[in-house]
Amino acid sequence: AGYDPREFPIVLTTVDSVLFTYHEDRLKVLLVQRANHPQAGRWALPGGYIDQDRDATLEDTAHRVLASKTGVVPPYIEQLGSFGGAGRDPRGWSVTIAYTALIPFQACLTHIESVTDTQWFDVARLNELELGFDHEAIIDAGRERFRQKALYSLVPAHALQEPFSLADLRRVHELLIGMTLSRKSFIRRVEESGALIETGDEAPSGRGRPSKLYRRSPHLDDYRFIRNIGK
Amino acid sequence: AGYDPREFPIVLTTVDSVLFTYHEDRLKVLLVQRANHPQAGRWALPGGYIDQDRDATLEDTAHRVLASKTGVVPPYIEQLGSFGGAGRDPRGWSVTIAYTALIPFQACLTHIESVTDTQWFDVARLNELELGFDHEAIIDAGRERFRQKALYSLVPAHALQEPFSLADLRRVHELLIGMTLSRKSFIRRVEESGALIETGDEAPSGRGRPSKLYRRSPHLDDYRFIRNIGK
Repeated sequence: AGYDPREFPIVLTTVDSVLFTYHEDRLKVLLVQRANHPQAGRWALPGGYIDQDRDATLEDTAHRVLASKTGVVPPYIEQLGSFGGAGRDPRGWSVTIAYTALIPFQACLTHIESVTDTQWFDVARLNELELGFDHEAIIDAGRERFRQKALYSLVPAHALQEPFSLADLRRVHELLIGMTLSRKSFIRRVEESGALIETGDEAPSGRGRPSKLYRRSPHLDDYRFIRNIGK
Repeated sequence: AGYDPREFPIVLTTVDSVLFTYHEDRLKVLLVQRANHPQAGRWALPGGYIDQDRDATLEDTAHRVLASKTGVVPPYIEQLGSFGGAGRDPRGWSVTIAYTALIPFQACLTHIESVTDTQWFDVARLNELELGFDHEAIIDAGRERFRQKALYSLVPAHALQEPFSLADLRRVHELLIGMTLSRKSFIRRVEESGALIETGDEAPSGRGRPSKLYRRSPHLDDYRFIRNIGK
């Protein structure tokens, strides 16, 4: 015999994702306007229930939902943490397993322009929105995760379309960390890391010399700085 | 209208905890022998369903289950991650939100000695057991989390009864990290950290001078070494 879980009140279990990108000098997060009860009309994280026929793992659920909203699977995703409780959803006790991810803006531009319920929002201006559920706290946790990644890795490069300049990458790091970084020191740290590869091409830059262009190396996700990049 | 989650197949959602302690020169993990289907008789992590009347948060569930198995709430606990999938439990698609925690052996000695289904196991000898579900992988994730904590913090002190010697704490760190640490360097790093407090008492040590005894400072959980403790 033993436990039959169907004898217990159901816990609503969902998967939500905090997807960031970089566009027009801003860090942006993807939000979806809720069509249904509860909190219809509010902007919330892309997420949904587990589809037991199609999803073999929690990451499959995150991939499926993000692909349905952006047209593609993001190049970088990691589990952020689970948020649960009696009070976070009016329908009852609920748990969401949250992922956080990065994508180049251009990778999903066409898809997102084709719909009205899915948009990028400047993370510095989220206070102008009333977000659904506890999603503001989940977005904050995602920002903190990538703040750490920006200090100790070059994973933020996944927010940029290849090839990219180190000026753009440094700007992504600055937005995530919340402080200005020295240009020379950033270039030196990137070159020492081997986590990015020079393409050999250059792009015109506003002033002076053209910028070297880079792409991600296969080791990018595993590379970790001993000293944080702000020091 | 909108989604009614009761129309969807139920996802089994549980909370499991990887609780470690230090005893007789060994790192140990708490396991509970399963009484019920599925996998009755196997040793597995202490865990269970969310009790919607008693638990306001996921951490409440972890605390409640651990207190029922050890008699006390552990002094250190953090969320480890969620493990989910179609194949991990024969009853169907399931998710467990895993926590990992530390407790002094003495804190729960009386309670655990009074029951037969709950025991400490040497983590170096878990290969002799056939564990339930994917709990071996969850224990590995808990060890890796505390390996990082042992390199960059003194959080492992939560596995020791106060007051404790630095020889014992160093041994806990060595077991978690998997390498020998220099005695002098460890003492210096602890003293520089301010994360532990000398009690002023001493305990006899095997050879030579008695050992100074320490307790945890209120800043212990927040203290982080810039350079890892093995260097």
